[in-house]
Amino acid sequence: MKITVLKNILDANLQTAERNQRLLESHDILAINIMASPGAGKTSLILKTIEGLGKEVAIGVIEGDIASTVDADRISQAGVPVVQINTGGGCHLDANMVANALDTMDLKKMDLLFIENVGNLVCPAGFKLGEQKRVVLASIPEGDDKPHKYPSMFSQTEAIVINKTDLLPYLEFDMEDFKGTVNSLNHGVKLFEVSAKTGGGFDAWLSWLKEEISLLRK
Amino acid sequence: MKITVLKNILDANLQTAERNQRLLESHDILAINIMASPGAGKTSLILKTIEGLGKEVAIGVIEGDIASTVDADRISQAGVPVVQINTGGGCHLDANMVANALDTMDLKKMDLLFIENVGNLVCPAGFKLGEQKRVVLASIPEGDDKPHKYPSMFSQTEAIVINKTDLLPYLEFDMEDFKGTVNSLNHGVKLFEVSAKTGGGFDAWLSWLKEEISLLRK
Repeated sequence: MKITVLKNILDANLQTAERNQRLLESHDILAINIMASPGAGKTSLILKTIEGLGKEVAIGVIEGDIASTVDADRISQAGVPVVQINTGGGCHLDANMVANALDTMDLKKMDLLFIENVGNLVCPAGFKLGEQKRVVLASIPEGDDKPHKYPSMFSQTEAIVINKTDLLPYLEFDMEDFKGTVNSLNHGVKLFEVSAKTGGGFDAWLSWLKEEISLLRK
Repeated sequence: MKITVLKNILDANLQTAERNQRLLESHDILAINIMASPGAGKTSLILKTIEGLGKEVAIGVIEGDIASTVDADRISQAGVPVVQINTGGGCHLDANMVANALDTMDLKKMDLLFIENVGNLVCPAGFKLGEQKRVVLASIPEGDDKPHKYPSMFSQTEAIVINKTDLLPYLEFDMEDFKGTVNSLNHGVKLFEVSAKTGGGFDAWLSWLKEEISLLRK
């Protein structure tokens, strides 16, 4: 008789994250873990994406915050299913929180899931949630030196979105220097320059999302 | 014979923080723990303060970052003694890191010490460093909803500095709403509206620092 021996080779968060990922893939859902500083515009990026893609792609959102439902309220007004996770002080989402959120969502009616992490450029980098892709959002007012100071965040992501490009005329931000640093940390990472306020630069971002959704179905 | 019994009633970080505080107070040094999101302008606030006060007040700086010496390099160029702490992944400074930094500084020649924490609106709130005052820096581009989402940070501080007011014409930021939220979390907290870029609003901020330094010497 065969005996099943389970080895605890992976940490609990990674195991739960892999379970989340299998669940999401079984439903052909592209799950994106969005990470950024507070106020970089994570919710605004999601809202503008809903505006651009919402008619052709079924979108769901998990909102992670220390406290409040400010972000979930905004998403809900856009008519998209949303679950708010309050970490109650925790500086990042973990896979178990996401598993609990997924339990309450109708995954059969979803193509794209945004998981908006707690606003933090440090802690979320260490915790996989079950996402297919990580996206780090940087914003022009934060300055072009952030990749130097938060290398884990910028080196462990599939795409970087640079938001608030509408403010470029009023600020000193060396885009070439930023891109150079990012490429030295994470060669070939996808880069999108957008303004979630004006919609500038969104075509390339939306095309990438659609392409990734279709790749998942092949 | 009297036996000394030490009770471990305080956690190690708090004990070290209290030791730092006593050391700083014995030298009549006003120590300020500056906390903010990445890119809110902590280093720029310090640099503009050095510009305004540096001739009459002896200033020292401890820089906390995950990685790099970007900030310490900027401070050093202003001719002020600076120690860089790299946390190597840690999302906040702790009292022991600050104790090590203080060991290397000439405290006899200092009136005011800025301790610039790691850019993070979550983790630093829970760790006292030995400061006399905490200052939270918020910036206009981050949005007026931050106190709702990071209540620990905004409720456990003696002063809040709102930076980048020069960008107010280009952004939607409801200052009255921000102040209302802050006051409900932390009644009577000191509020300063400044632009570290233009120097706007710095008079009140510099006066407060000078007043706090003189109070320490009474």
